[in-house]
Amino acid sequence: MNTLELWQRYLDWLYFNEDLGLYLDVSRMRFDDEWVAALEPKFAQAFKDMDALEQGAIANPDENRMVGHYWLRDPDLAPAELKNEIVENLDKIEAFVGKIHKGGIRPPRAPKFTDVLSVGIGGSALGPQFVDEALASDFPPLAIHFIDNTDPAGIDRILNRLKDRLSSTLVIVTSKSGGTPETRNGMMEVKHAYEQQGLDFAAHAVAVTMLGSKMDELERNEGWLAEFPMFDWVGGRTSEMSSVGLLSASLLGIDVHAMLAGAKTMDLATRTPEIKRNPAALLALSWYHAGNGKGEKDMVVIPYKDSLLLFSRYLQQLVMESLGKEKDLDGNTVHQGIAVYGNKGSTDQHAFVQQLREGIANFFAIFVEVLEDRNGASIEIEPDVTSGDFLFGFLQGTRQALYENHRDSITVTIAKVTPRTVGALIALFERAVGIYATLVNVNAYHQPGVEAGKKAAGTLLGLQRKILAVLKSTNQPLELAELAEKVGASDQVEQVYKIVRHLAANQRGVVLLGDHGKPDQLGVSYKSLVN
Amino acid sequence: MNTLELWQRYLDWLYFNEDLGLYLDVSRMRFDDEWVAALEPKFAQAFKDMDALEQGAIANPDENRMVGHYWLRDPDLAPAELKNEIVENLDKIEAFVGKIHKGGIRPPRAPKFTDVLSVGIGGSALGPQFVDEALASDFPPLAIHFIDNTDPAGIDRILNRLKDRLSSTLVIVTSKSGGTPETRNGMMEVKHAYEQQGLDFAAHAVAVTMLGSKMDELERNEGWLAEFPMFDWVGGRTSEMSSVGLLSASLLGIDVHAMLAGAKTMDLATRTPEIKRNPAALLALSWYHAGNGKGEKDMVVIPYKDSLLLFSRYLQQLVMESLGKEKDLDGNTVHQGIAVYGNKGSTDQHAFVQQLREGIANFFAIFVEVLEDRNGASIEIEPDVTSGDFLFGFLQGTRQALYENHRDSITVTIAKVTPRTVGALIALFERAVGIYATLVNVNAYHQPGVEAGKKAAGTLLGLQRKILAVLKSTNQPLELAELAEKVGASDQVEQVYKIVRHLAANQRGVVLLGDHGKPDQLGVSYKSLVN
Repeated sequence: MNTLELWQRYLDWLYFNEDLGLYLDVSRMRFDDEWVAALEPKFAQAFKDMDALEQGAIANPDENRMVGHYWLRDPDLAPAELKNEIVENLDKIEAFVGKIHKGGIRPPRAPKFTDVLSVGIGGSALGPQFVDEALASDFPPLAIHFIDNTDPAGIDRILNRLKDRLSSTLVIVTSKSGGTPETRNGMMEVKHAYEQQGLDFAAHAVAVTMLGSKMDELERNEGWLAEFPMFDWVGGRTSEMSSVGLLSASLLGIDVHAMLAGAKTMDLATRTPEIKRNPAALLALSWYHAGNGKGEKDMVVIPYKDSLLLFSRYLQQLVMESLGKEKDLDGNTVHQGIAVYGNKGSTDQHAFVQQLREGIANFFAIFVEVLEDRNGASIEIEPDVTSGDFLFGFLQGTRQALYENHRDSITVTIAKVTPRTVGALIALFERAVGIYATLVNVNAYHQPGVEAGKKAAGTLLGLQRKILAVLKSTNQPLELAELAEKVGASDQVEQVYKIVRHLAANQRGVVLLGDHGKPDQLGVSYKSLVN
Repeated sequence: MNTLELWQRYLDWLYFNEDLGLYLDVSRMRFDDEWVAALEPKFAQAFKDMDALEQGAIANPDENRMVGHYWLRDPDLAPAELKNEIVENLDKIEAFVGKIHKGGIRPPRAPKFTDVLSVGIGGSALGPQFVDEALASDFPPLAIHFIDNTDPAGIDRILNRLKDRLSSTLVIVTSKSGGTPETRNGMMEVKHAYEQQGLDFAAHAVAVTMLGSKMDELERNEGWLAEFPMFDWVGGRTSEMSSVGLLSASLLGIDVHAMLAGAKTMDLATRTPEIKRNPAALLALSWYHAGNGKGEKDMVVIPYKDSLLLFSRYLQQLVMESLGKEKDLDGNTVHQGIAVYGNKGSTDQHAFVQQLREGIANFFAIFVEVLEDRNGASIEIEPDVTSGDFLFGFLQGTRQALYENHRDSITVTIAKVTPRTVGALIALFERAVGIYATLVNVNAYHQPGVEAGKKAAGTLLGLQRKILAVLKSTNQPLELAELAEKVGASDQVEQVYKIVRHLAANQRGVVLLGDHGKPDQLGVSYKSLVN
């Protein structure tokens, strides 16, 4: 196609939402009308499925759950018995945050809360982190910090930097089931730090969890400051507009009503049962075309805006955890998914775009363009050219260079980064994932593969307990194979080795004797023996 | 293979460097001895090429350059005329940093420098960012901030947060050529902020650039505080052990001698011309096996340690910019490369590991394990189990779960995160990339594809200047096509549209008239007309 034909294609396929000031351009995806027409029946089904989901069907059959994140933005659509819960919860969050900001709720030993420490992982961290980075002002009412892992050194770093302000720090612990080990561990480490300083943890702690969960029980027993519900029908990776995202965003002074309104407006737009007029359908269509409905191409997400740096990491979870499935809904083995990565432009042009432009063509790109460069006017870097013009030029130039080299791309354009547009972006990709899942016939709302690693870890920790018990009760060094035998794991020498190697590095009394480069010849001893 | 056979394979292939306390385990890559033997001749060539490179051969033929980042760690290996430059530069950095820390060099209006603002992009940012995050203490002697883009809003955020400390902020501007637009723009924006506060920018500014570059000239004319050289024979993505990385690391109080020593030790180990005893060769072998020498599998890098979060982003550049090439060294079209992504474990297990475990099998994983959980002892979360045990268990469990599902992985294990081990990790992957490049016969040291996007951007900015000139001299609104014709770009209506849309959003006098959803029907006006 020559440039004028491409311009016509741009016009033909451009989606524009006036209300949101949002454009979606799929003109640089190389599908043709015939191919689109052949997919119409699949889309008709997807629109129907999505409609049923919004009516409260069991859209997550494995877990026998409704999927209701769309109701959070428009409670009138929710089943009658849920509507009030949604509305009341938002009111409750606002009332709580208002009191925190004004000092009506305050910590025992400080006039006001100054910091928020958010403990949570996965869906309980990525949304809040993305929204914080995108939308918090340069000097928000409270400073936020995240513990999103069970890494002791990482926890220590956060707690050490906060040590002089723990007494004025509000701790939010977020876990839907209340049993996520990383979150439970983080909470216990934080609690320990409070106790070390003689502070009352409960007076600083807020739970975000499902009613009836272990954490709900703990919170009640210990009398925490507050609790906000996670709903059974909201999954972790679509929980940004539930208590998970709204509480921390409100605390940071972000206008959550605008975020909800943006998402609601996008939800409305993405209900349109016509591909060309539905931006989520256009995205799903493009993804399907790029990867042949099998994820054959990676999705490289490059927002040209520093504040959207975490968008690709957020989408990594939303897309990969939703679509990356072994079985389809009929039980066939399909190994679906789409790999997602990216950081930000034009920075990435100085990192991996060399490969995108010239190297292996195993991807398609999603550019996110923000029209407003900054709040206010810019200095000129060269006559009639600003820093923002360069950013704009690099985006357009890269899009063009990729296209000329037969690499497809999508461009999403928003007027500026606001709570409204960020809410709309989240809703746009949520719906695109939902539609794409129907096209490829997978359950987008469960994550069965996450359990395998957890189970294996549980087995390992069980083995560790046995090893420590044996070592403590033996009064001489053991050969590795001998130790494995004694704990009833003769076939698990590698695991036994890994466990004692890790214990030996962490002041746990275990000492390894011999040449560390020859693990099978190591002796394992316990401290009381060595001393 | 059963678990005992796997244990034997683990022992057979385990690489251990006692000096560094570093293990490399490739036992979960499914190659066999016969396949390895068939590759021996290719490796023999790679070892020879690497040797020639270290002797000063023109290893980057397109740019007619030597490739000398290995000399930075062992100046005795450098050509005689370069040795002194390396040694003297390190001395100079140390002397400068010592004076900054002690106040011997101080800003005009403050007793001491309190902050560092690093302006640079790509290789001039990713290394310093990674090393800062990995190694800086919780309270370093100076706080560091980065401007690594030409995003006006991103620049404003950094400068606004720093506004009360600009007078005690040291600005490092890093650009090898001195002509990188993003860095030049960032520098001008920062300079403008200094001028707005009536501060003398030059008295706060340090240049890191090549002698004779535009920035070198500017620095001399304006009399900046200091300048440190970038050497012609060090590429951006391998510049962490040059002035680029050493200056900022030293300012943060990081022991750069230990970092260099760790890299030197690894360099020594990776010169061994025997695959099984050379960890970089083992990595390159594994990558080659995973992707069939064509990058058919993505490389997913998951360090189980918060402080190593940016390692995958650092490797994204190192690997993708080095290997992602259209042509091989003989001019054949090959479209090489390996896509890299990842964040950290176990956090990623709650994000995209669902897809890794069950979904599309288009990747191999590299786990990075750190044996020491934290500095000091841990509380018990459950009897005999700590937070760190969980982290360890999740890594081992995920490795096992992936393997059982026929997904291969590599595990790199270090004793702890120190300047020495971080230096070793950088050197390990640098050499692995160099060896792999020889295996697939590409130039790992140039980046020709980066130019295409830049050129297209330059053309666009040229078009913008013409558009503004025409609009300023016309006294009535123009149709889009008319405007395109007037600037001599009748075939570039799309570009013209994008330019005026961007200008209209940024207080540049341009106004778009009509329905924004129908770009071809828009009128374009200039402010003076509208008023």
